[in-house]
Amino acid sequence: MKVTVTQENLSKALGVVSRVASSRTSLPVLNNILLRTESNRLLLAATNLEVAITEHIGAKVTSEGAITIPARLLSEFISNLPKGNVELKVDGTKLHISADKYISTINGMPADEFPALPQIENAYTLTLPTSLLKQAISQTVLTASSDDTRPVLTGVLCHVYNGELYLAATDGYRLSERRLGKNSDDIKALIPASTLSDVARVVPEDCDEVTILIDDSQVRFRMNDIEVTSRLIEGNFPDYRQLIPKETEIHATLSRSEFVRVTKVASLFARESGGSVTVATESEGQVVSIHSIASQLGENTSEAAAEVDQSGSVTLNSRYLIEALGCFDKETIKFGFSGKLAPCVITEVDGSGDYQHIIMPLRS
Amino acid sequence: MKVTVTQENLSKALGVVSRVASSRTSLPVLNNILLRTESNRLLLAATNLEVAITEHIGAKVTSEGAITIPARLLSEFISNLPKGNVELKVDGTKLHISADKYISTINGMPADEFPALPQIENAYTLTLPTSLLKQAISQTVLTASSDDTRPVLTGVLCHVYNGELYLAATDGYRLSERRLGKNSDDIKALIPASTLSDVARVVPEDCDEVTILIDDSQVRFRMNDIEVTSRLIEGNFPDYRQLIPKETEIHATLSRSEFVRVTKVASLFARESGGSVTVATESEGQVVSIHSIASQLGENTSEAAAEVDQSGSVTLNSRYLIEALGCFDKETIKFGFSGKLAPCVITEVDGSGDYQHIIMPLRS
Repeated sequence: MKVTVTQENLSKALGVVSRVASSRTSLPVLNNILLRTESNRLLLAATNLEVAITEHIGAKVTSEGAITIPARLLSEFISNLPKGNVELKVDGTKLHISADKYISTINGMPADEFPALPQIENAYTLTLPTSLLKQAISQTVLTASSDDTRPVLTGVLCHVYNGELYLAATDGYRLSERRLGKNSDDIKALIPASTLSDVARVVPEDCDEVTILIDDSQVRFRMNDIEVTSRLIEGNFPDYRQLIPKETEIHATLSRSEFVRVTKVASLFARESGGSVTVATESEGQVVSIHSIASQLGENTSEAAAEVDQSGSVTLNSRYLIEALGCFDKETIKFGFSGKLAPCVITEVDGSGDYQHIIMPLRS
Repeated sequence: MKVTVTQENLSKALGVVSRVASSRTSLPVLNNILLRTESNRLLLAATNLEVAITEHIGAKVTSEGAITIPARLLSEFISNLPKGNVELKVDGTKLHISADKYISTINGMPADEFPALPQIENAYTLTLPTSLLKQAISQTVLTASSDDTRPVLTGVLCHVYNGELYLAATDGYRLSERRLGKNSDDIKALIPASTLSDVARVVPEDCDEVTILIDDSQVRFRMNDIEVTSRLIEGNFPDYRQLIPKETEIHATLSRSEFVRVTKVASLFARESGGSVTVATESEGQVVSIHSIASQLGENTSEAAAEVDQSGSVTLNSRYLIEALGCFDKETIKFGFSGKLAPCVITEVDGSGDYQHIIMPLRS
């Protein structure tokens, strides 16, 4: 193999694919990036056997071939080179790299030791605007569990319900659901939250639409010349709609940034109690107040002006509340609850109503 | 005590003093910040018994008094409050804080449990422009040792020699010396490098000059309303001038940023060998080349154009070289050495000659 590429393209592509190459693997070749000529382009690929990321970049191909090279060293080396042309030449299991006054040889492993890249066939295909998908990912992945003992909860459910497409995730303590528009296919795929985070991170700025292919066991996200392909999680996702209250009794409408600020201040005093804060609505004063007590440190009460229809209170994990409020982009939100035991529901006031975020209360 | 201050002033001052309050202390009150009225101002102070930082801020004092409050909670709480007035009221060992709609009580400890703040008397006084002092600190602290087994090497020597003031530090592997201008006093003080780093971090942007007071055992840096007072390190600093070569035989003059880049690239291949790279000058090609070999990973040679008077080579720790080059602000530097065993000397070419940085070679 002998190819010439630009430092900018190669460095960017290495940044994209190398995130799934892991040095904590029992199979050393997974620590490497596959480089392979494909007609007049260079394929870069990395996989951890769960997720594979590939990117094609333009190349002047003098001779065909392939090799695998340690991801970290190659990425760091290329990113430190000056802009301009980089020549890559394979000699056995060595890759000779030359660029301007920089000459290096990196020892690699043969390309045929690299696992076959995943194929996807007979798939449902859907296309979403990149900005919509990125927002929906950021609104749902945070409520997926990071606890591998219940794998289904580490996924985000992508499914069609009543003719509309949804993403939803829950870790048992909180839940989020985002509606993504009309769809008449019979889609139900449990996508690892980490895969969606990877997608959100690698999608190029100039990519307007993401094409998603889903088959029985895999999902692929196609973004210009980048593809992220992942296994789906097996198992039955809980019937999460049962967990969403049909309605709530007490409602406060208030500024999201004020709500975040008073919750942050209260959370400082809630460290001893695992972040537990009490949110109270006061219909007389038309305020939401947040109270926290730390027997050793002291106590705090902070208030934010709100439209309140009833007085009441509920105790929540302050981190969950702060993270939930960070999922909205409108400045006014509605906080609904029904006393100390029922779930709280946060929705936007002047928006599309496409997103809701549910937090289970703490026993207080 | 009852005072009113602005959130902006209080938050900034807490950020300055709280850096020396430590939660890893056997004396719990050192975890706290002292708040004390002093005529129409509020004193904030923290100490770790080695270094004390104080700041005075303007205050409307309704009644005099003092208290100590946990540094971290107070700093985080105040920094999250909205801009505007903050009222502080002491009630026994509790501090009541109210600001707009935020009401908190933080439990503290009595002010008389706080150690007496250090006094400094009969001191030499010198005044330096802030920008000069900050630059000299950044140029010297990095060559001080972080190894407490030889305490004298953890300090920066501030001393007068032949009518000129110098800062100098060495960890035994490298050495830096910065000349700070004429001085006829008999000054010799070994200042902890960490104190100098604190000074550089807390000096306010609108402070043009720093006044330094030095007595037999202490140093104080006075910057507007902020004072940093530190113990000096006892013991004899090595006669470092003996370690600086009078002259070097081989010289290369080159672009600092190019030299950094080729060294960084070479260092990627030098991980197996503890960062060891070989710098070679070539008088024929008028280049400096850097070579590194990692038997497992591969090898690298990078070149930078230079003015070279002789060919030669020396093996160095690449991290030391990169850090040394970061101490200069001029774009052209001179790299001098005398073969594989003698120290390398880096100086600036078109500058004042006030700074030199010496690196010991590695056996190769």
